[in-house]
Parts: sequence; C-alpha cells; structure tokens
Amino acid sequence: MSDRSVFDLFSSTTNRRRFIRDGGLAAVVAGVAGACKAESPPAQKAAADQAKSTAGQTGGTMGPNDTASGASIRANPDAMDAMHEKRMKAFPAPTTGAGNQLLTPTVEQGIKHFEITAKKIQWETEPGNTVEAWAYNDQVPGPQIRVREGDRVRVVLHNQLPESTSIHFHGLELPNAMDGVPFVTQPPVKPGESFTYDFTVPNAGSHMYHSHHNAAKQVGLGLLGAFIVEPKAKTQYDSPDVDEVLILNDGAHGYTFNGKSFPATKPIVAKLGQTVRIRFMNEGMMIHPMHLHGIHMTVVAKDGWPVPAPWRCDTLNVAPGERWDAVVHCTNPGTWAFHCHILPHAESDHGMFGMVTALVVQK
Amino acid sequence: MSDRSVFDLFSSTTNRRRFIRDGGLAAVVAGVAGACKAESPPAQKAAADQAKSTAGQTGGTMGPNDTASGASIRANPDAMDAMHEKRMKAFPAPTTGAGNQLLTPTVEQGIKHFEITAKKIQWETEPGNTVEAWAYNDQVPGPQIRVREGDRVRVVLHNQLPESTSIHFHGLELPNAMDGVPFVTQPPVKPGESFTYDFTVPNAGSHMYHSHHNAAKQVGLGLLGAFIVEPKAKTQYDSPDVDEVLILNDGAHGYTFNGKSFPATKPIVAKLGQTVRIRFMNEGMMIHPMHLHGIHMTVVAKDGWPVPAPWRCDTLNVAPGERWDAVVHCTNPGTWAFHCHILPHAESDHGMFGMVTALVVQK
Amino acid sequence: MSDRSVFDLFSSTTNRRRFIRDGGLAAVVAGVAGACKAESPPAQKAAADQAKSTAGQTGGTMGPNDTASGASIRANPDAMDAMHEKRMKAFPAPTTGAGNQLLTPTVEQGIKHFEITAKKIQWETEPGNTVEAWAYNDQVPGPQIRVREGDRVRVVLHNQLPESTSIHFHGLELPNAMDGVPFVTQPPVKPGESFTYDFTVPNAGSHMYHSHHNAAKQVGLGLLGAFIVEPKAKTQYDSPDVDEVLILNDGAHGYTFNGKSFPATKPIVAKLGQTVRIRFMNEGMMIHPMHLHGIHMTVVAKDGWPVPAPWRCDTLNVAPGERWDAVVHCTNPGTWAFHCHILPHAESDHGMFGMVTALVVQK
Repeated sequence: MSDRSVFDLFSSTTNRRRFIRDGGLAAVVAGVAGACKAESPPAQKAAADQAKSTAGQTGGTMGPNDTASGASIRANPDAMDAMHEKRMKAFPAPTTGAGNQLLTPTVEQGIKHFEITAKKIQWETEPGNTVEAWAYNDQVPGPQIRVREGDRVRVVLHNQLPESTSIHFHGLELPNAMDGVPFVTQPPVKPGESFTYDFTVPNAGSHMYHSHHNAAKQVGLGLLGAFIVEPKAKTQYDSPDVDEVLILNDGAHGYTFNGKSFPATKPIVAKLGQTVRIRFMNEGMMIHPMHLHGIHMTVVAKDGWPVPAPWRCDTLNVAPGERWDAVVHCTNPGTWAFHCHILPHAESDHGMFGMVTALVVQK
Repeated sequence: MSDRSVFDLFSSTTNRRRFIRDGGLAAVVAGVAGACKAESPPAQKAAADQAKSTAGQTGGTMGPNDTASGASIRANPDAMDAMHEKRMKAFPAPTTGAGNQLLTPTVEQGIKHFEITAKKIQWETEPGNTVEAWAYNDQVPGPQIRVREGDRVRVVLHNQLPESTSIHFHGLELPNAMDGVPFVTQPPVKPGESFTYDFTVPNAGSHMYHSHHNAAKQVGLGLLGAFIVEPKAKTQYDSPDVDEVLILNDGAHGYTFNGKSFPATKPIVAKLGQTVRIRFMNEGMMIHPMHLHGIHMTVVAKDGWPVPAPWRCDTLNVAPGERWDAVVHCTNPGTWAFHCHILPHAESDHGMFGMVTALVVQK
Repeated sequence: MSDRSVFDLFSSTTNRRRFIRDGGLAAVVAGVAGACKAESPPAQKAAADQAKSTAGQTGGTMGPNDTASGASIRANPDAMDAMHEKRMKAFPAPTTGAGNQLLTPTVEQGIKHFEITAKKIQWETEPGNTVEAWAYNDQVPGPQIRVREGDRVRVVLHNQLPESTSIHFHGLELPNAMDGVPFVTQPPVKPGESFTYDFTVPNAGSHMYHSHHNAAKQVGLGLLGAFIVEPKAKTQYDSPDVDEVLILNDGAHGYTFNGKSFPATKPIVAKLGQTVRIRFMNEGMMIHPMHLHGIHMTVVAKDGWPVPAPWRCDTLNVAPGERWDAVVHCTNPGTWAFHCHILPHAESDHGMFGMVTALVVQK
C-alpha cells in the first residue's frame, strides 16, 4: 500500500503559473504534509517538468473572446468557477482521522491475532463535516486486515456499541460457525460482549469484513473494512508497485472513498512506468461506475478470484458487495481525475465533491 | 428442480442448544412440513453433526463481558435482537400459494401444449402480507415452462384480467409474429380473449415469459415466469444435482424471490459434494447483486448463452431483464445466507426481510 | 452509420390488415419521409412478405372470447389500448432537430480540424415536448466526431453558454493538458471564450466527449457526443454493414436515445443477413439494461477495448460512463422491439415512451 501523497494538481502552463503565483500549491502541500507526509520538492519538480513537456507538444491554447459579449454574462460564471476552484485547490484536504490503516497482528504460536473494537465515534468526512460513525478501532473504514492464504487467524470483536453486532467475513469461505450471521451461525454479540472468530484463511483475494446485524444501518454507519488475503502462489498481477484499496460507500456519511469525501479523499500516487493495483470494494447501496481518466485499467480479479482472461476498461461498474481488482500501467504522466461516473455523486454546481480522487503519475 | 426443504438453521453449538431447548426447530420443521414436505429427522441429524464438527475445530467462543456495563444499555438491543431472532426462526415460513411450479404440458401430435390463464388474485408474499397480484395460473411467478430445444410448443394465453395483455418470450429468438409486442407483432389480447403462441423452440437456456403490454404495471404485479429450454447438446454444466430458478422482483409486492419475501422464501438444499445450478432472473426495476456466503459461484451462462470462459464470484450483479446461470459446488457444509447485497433490500432494524434465503449444504 | 429508416411496424396478418385499412402505414411513412428519407415501397413490400410467411408457418391466432363477459369490462381497456396504439403508430415520429450527425472536419496540413460551439437551444425530444438544452452545434447529442487512430486532431470549443465549460474526451488517453478537467488540466473556458484541444489520437474505439465542468448539470442538459476512433488494424468486427451509435441519457430531457424519446427515436434498419454494430454509450445517471428482442447480441468491445472473448446476450447492462460495442447478425426478419428493460423507463399506462426503439430486419 502506498501512502505517498505527493501530487501535482495542475499541469497546463497557464494554470500552473497562476497556481504558483497564488501560493495554492504551498497551501496544499502544507495540508498534505500534515495529513499524509508529502514530499513536496519532488512534487513541485514533477509538476513543473510535466507542464513544460505537455505544453510544448500538443498543448491547448486559450483563444480570444471570439463570439459572445463579456463582463455581464461572466459575473455569475466567475462566482461559480471560484467555488469550483476553491474545492479543487483544497485537494487533498487534511481531516482528522484516517481509515483503512494496516492493522499489525500479534502472533502467538503461529496464530495471527487481531483485536477489533466496535464503537460509536465522531468522524470527519471532509473539512467541516463531522458525523456520527460506528467504527472499528476508531476508523472508517475499519483497519485493513492483511494475511496470507493458509494463515491461522483470530479476530476478536469487542462490542462497545449500543446495539448487538457481528462480523461477516465477506468472500472468505469459512467454516459455517465463523460466518457471522446472528441466529444462523452464532448469537448476536451483545453490547459489552466479545466474540472470537477463529479460522484458517481458506482463499486468497480482495475481501471485506463488516457487520451482519442490522447491517443496512451498521454498515452504512461505518462498520466495514478490507480483508486482504495474499495468495500462496502469486500471479503476474500480485506484485504491483503500488497496491491500493478503494472502498466505496454511499450511506449516512455521503459519497465516500475510504471514508472520506472529496476534497478529503487521498490521491493514488505512482511513478511513470509503475503498476498500480486498485482493489475496488463497494460497501454501499448503489452501483458506482468508476472512471479513470487518461489510462485504462486491466481487470484481473472479481471477488478475489482471478478472471479467466483479463479485460480492459476505463469505467468499471462496481455493485454493492462486489470487489474488483484492476491493474493500471502508469504510462501516461499527469494528474488524472478518478471518480464515480454517476455525475451527481461527484459534482454539483458548487464543484467536485464526494466520489472524486486522482491518480497522480509522476515523471 | 429440488423441492427438498430440509435445512439446518443453526450450526454453532451454543445456538443449536438454545434453539432445541426453545423448541424452535420443532416449530420450524412443522411449518416446513406443511409447506414443503420436510424430512425432519435427517435435518436434525445433519445439523447436530455439523454443530459438533465445526465447534470442535476452529469454533467461535463467546467471551466474557469485557468492556461495557450491562443491563441498562442492553434493554433496547435485546428487544431488537428478539425481533431479529423471531424472523430468523420463522424461516422458511409457510404461506398460501407457491409460484414457479412446473407446468406439465399435454402433448398432441408431438406438440407440447401449455394453457396459461392471466387473472387477478390475492397473493401472500409472507405471513400476514397478502397483496393483489396479476398472475398466470394463480401463481407468482407463473408456472415454470420447461421444454427442449427444437420442441414444437403451443402456449395458449387466456386473458381474464381487466386490461389487455400479451406474452413476450424474453430471450427466445422466435418468428416475429410470436414476439408478443402489441401493435407491432400482434394485437393486444383483450379481456376475455385468448391468443395462441405457436412456435418451434429455437434456442436453449434460461429464459422468461412475461407481459409486454402496460408491462411496468403488469410485470410488477406478477405476470411473469421462467421459460427453461434444455439444450440438445448438453455441456458439463447441464446436469447439476439441483437445478433452481431464482426470479428476483422489486415491484408492487416488495422485494421477492420467486414471489415470496423472507422469511417465506424457500431455501435451496443440497448435500455435501453436490452441484447446484442457480438460474437468476431479474423481473424487477433495480439491480440486485446476489451474495452467497461460504461458497463461490461459477458463472456459466448469460441470458441462456454459455459464457466463453466461466468465471467465479460470490456476488453476482443481476440487472433487470438479465438471466445468469451459476453453478455452486457444495464443498462447504452449513446454512449459508444468500441475499441481495443492497442491504436495505434484505435487512431493517426489525430483522432480515425481502431478498433473503439460504443455501443449505447438508452433510 | 446507417440513416435508412425504412421499417415495417406490423408483421402479423391481422394487424397488418387493420393497419393498412386505417391508413396508419401511409401516415407513418409520410412522417418518416419527412424526417428520415424513407423508401416506402420496399418497406411495404417487405412487411407484406413477412406477414405472409410468418403467418403461414407457426402463426398466432386470435381465439374466441372463451372466458369472460365482454363489453363492459372492455371499455377501459379499449381506451388504454387506443393510447398505446396511437403511440406505436406514431413511430418513428418526426421531430425538429437530429443529434449525432457526422461532423466533417476541415483538413489543413494533415490536421483534422473540428469546430464545436456550445450554446443554449430549444430541443424537441418527442412531438410536442420541447425543452431547454445545452448543445454542441445545436444538436443533442452533439455532432459525431469520427477519426482514425493516429490522426492529428484539433477540436476548437467555443463557449456561448452562460456558464464556463470544458470538454473531456472520455476514453481517449490524451496528454494530461488535453484532458479537460478545469483547475486540474486547464482553466475553465469562460462564456465567450474558446479553447483548442490539440492532440494525436492515441487509442481506437467507441468513446465520448462531454463537459467536465458543472457536469452533472451540463451533461444532463446535452453537452455530450460520440467520439469514434477507427482502428489502424481492423478486427473481424470492424466492418459491419450498419454501424450505429446509441447514446443513452436520463437527465433533464427524460429517457432518451440519441436525444429523442419514443416515438421520436430512430429505428435501426438492416437487411436480412447483414451485421449491425451498436455502440452503446451511457451519458446518464442510471444503468440501462438494453434488451433486444428476437436476436442476440455478441459483445465485442468494452470502453473501446476488444473483449478477450466475445460473449452473447440479449440484455446488456450499460452503466453511466460505459461504452459497449455489440454486433448483431440479422438472421431473423421482422421489427424487433429494442428497449431499456427497466420497464418504467420504457412504458407507462399511456403506452411505450422514453427508451424504446426497434431493430428492423428487412427481407
């Protein structure tokens, strides 16, 4: 998993100049540095290099005012554009809290032991928007559990919520008693109680864990996380340079990627020539067709299972409960918008919001 | 098609004991026996066997009250859990009427002759919820028509509805005049009239028949059914041990599988080692990503056509009008939740409802 | 691209007769002739031939009034049917304006030069329904841009809208500065300004161009079009007899195909034995599972990329932002309904509307 957040937001010469003039980059980089440990000097250099090269070859040019009148009809557009620009420049906006953080197990007698506490917290989805969340280990999504096929694992769930709960390991082919469905495979885990899920990891791939009790509410409020299983036998797609989890949600917290809404989403960053694997996971109630600008994706796995023949796309429809693994060969430098293509999930007349992030390919 | 409904609802030792103590199983089995001819003794034995084996290996354990206080904060959760438990224990709940019943044709001079009468009925979707339905042969879905590729077939539609209607054989590549589109291929069939669809079955696979007149209303009210065509040349997937049709709907009757809402849905039952083919058909207005717990599905056909390379998943997104055939190799014993993963289609704070059933793999 | 609109709306003998008697065909053909240059005599002949042959073989027959009473219960159905019939007979209804018209570039020094002007217009989606549209070159969808892989292209956008805008070439792997995202790759193009997109076409396939500024509104109002790139190396699917673009939308203009709602949609017309390629593109906010009656589709490309193994279906789920290429081998003569299978997008109790058209296979 990459946690580099160096990025170059603007690439055309004109905007680059204005952006630097206004001090926008410094502000953003400061924000990034606080939230994400950005390496600001390389980011500036990469962006400058790119601006030079793209402008010199087949660059766009802003032409003269060739058709319409001017000042009056531009008053409102300027106000709208300023709102849009403000949101763009805020990206990636620092917020309190980060979800999907790798959870390091303790290991005893060869068993990987994970502690998960479910409780009510306050969660900042974007600057100024703090909501009630029901979270695992104070994160939305919950901490990322990453193990290997065949590992012996114990996940201890502690319930500090005001409701009963349970964990279903979505995608894992566990013994029935570990499946997490109250009144079918176990009793609900009452407030104040704990439950130990104890199993040998049966199958590889991109999976999830989430509540399976009053789940329309509990998952919507944040009781979900990624459960990644590395395969015993690696395929050609299992050693990407950058390995990202992108959990989509659309419940009580609005349209989010990994628990955050644009501009507080986290860009994916890679260097030119690297490969990025994106593990899409939908924990929401709606489809989200994810569109990557500038570079196609090669779909390599569905629900953790390798597809028989990888296929290419730029818009990948991810339905609730599905996981799709896609590989991106970063052959095209720049900052590429990456968003749900149900446009009302990504943009309003106040600017981009919700399900928007970027893939930054640095030269 | 299997109509065995023997199942083992609980598999953890703790719950198994409580369940037996409360007499829950007896009640359910009695219900099943009425509705579905359950074989109760094997069910009890299988469930007991399974409970023993899963608990002995990597079983979950209910830990002590380790974090929160107790009685007071549990008052509401207990009430909620009781509602959830009650619905779970009611499964599979007996209701009046069963849809998708195999319709035996009369055969004259080599022609398979089916009689279909469309009329308004009362339909019980779950205990206590009786709705108006527009039904073929008093069933929702209508009776299952099952023929072979190349068969000569006559389907006589009798319209006893207060509106005109027609039948479109969705997926069959019929001569145009048999396509069932009023004012394009035939006149509407007026109330009190009949119309004979007469054709040679042109292509194999999982198809549907439904109204194509005022269809947003008429299909939503129940004028739909499965039209299964067995191929002349069988593939390796065409001889499963259990062959199920699962018609999804989300119209006037709520979220239903084969016309019934949980807990009145019917479990799919197989023995360990058997293969189950599930023919998903969506007659609704929304996608339904169907999630099977515990065992993956291998997708083998789309709209009746074999896929070039079968692919695996645990969550299969089924869009309106689509049919998908998936094969499940029942390698993992237990009662596996099987539901739409748009969670508000499957669970509320009152418990599981709507698009929920189970795959029961018996040892 | 075919712009033949010869079609035969009715194929059963009974209706054929009534249709001719009522003068319906003449009316429709006159409408078609105005809007689409129909060749009426072959259409009449083909329809008559087909009616004869299908009726003679396995034709449907309207049976006697065998069950219900009659006149009284048929008063309302007759009124409803008359509304349905009227809409069917109106197809294809002439309207003012046609979208997706091929845009011929000027060529200078080997560069293909396209001029695109965005402005507010009035747009007739179906007879009597005129709405405000934001359009490229006075069309919804905008003019079709069709180039070859490797072409050097200039697209000059002139903004005569009351808001800023931009063009994103959805699916093209352009240099970042040409990607069309305001404040990321370029400044917004203000009202009265122009912007030149200048690039070498990097990848083949079915792509789109649309606004990427306040896009939930601007694309919904019509700022979108097809960008088709013919490949340098043709595959077996790249030389169909008929090549159609079908852009789906569900925004401010209702449910539309290429900017028009049924009965103003345009039928796709081919001769028996021909192949038709349909390039589905979804510019809306909802999925649209497209169902073709009578003949299956073979899916050959996703987002412009050939699929590794073509697969067959009759219902193709198209999500927002996706493009799918499907080939239809026109082996079954007749007028085949072709519609979104979310039925409320295609039919109401007033008859077919919105996302409905037909594939007409002429003998």
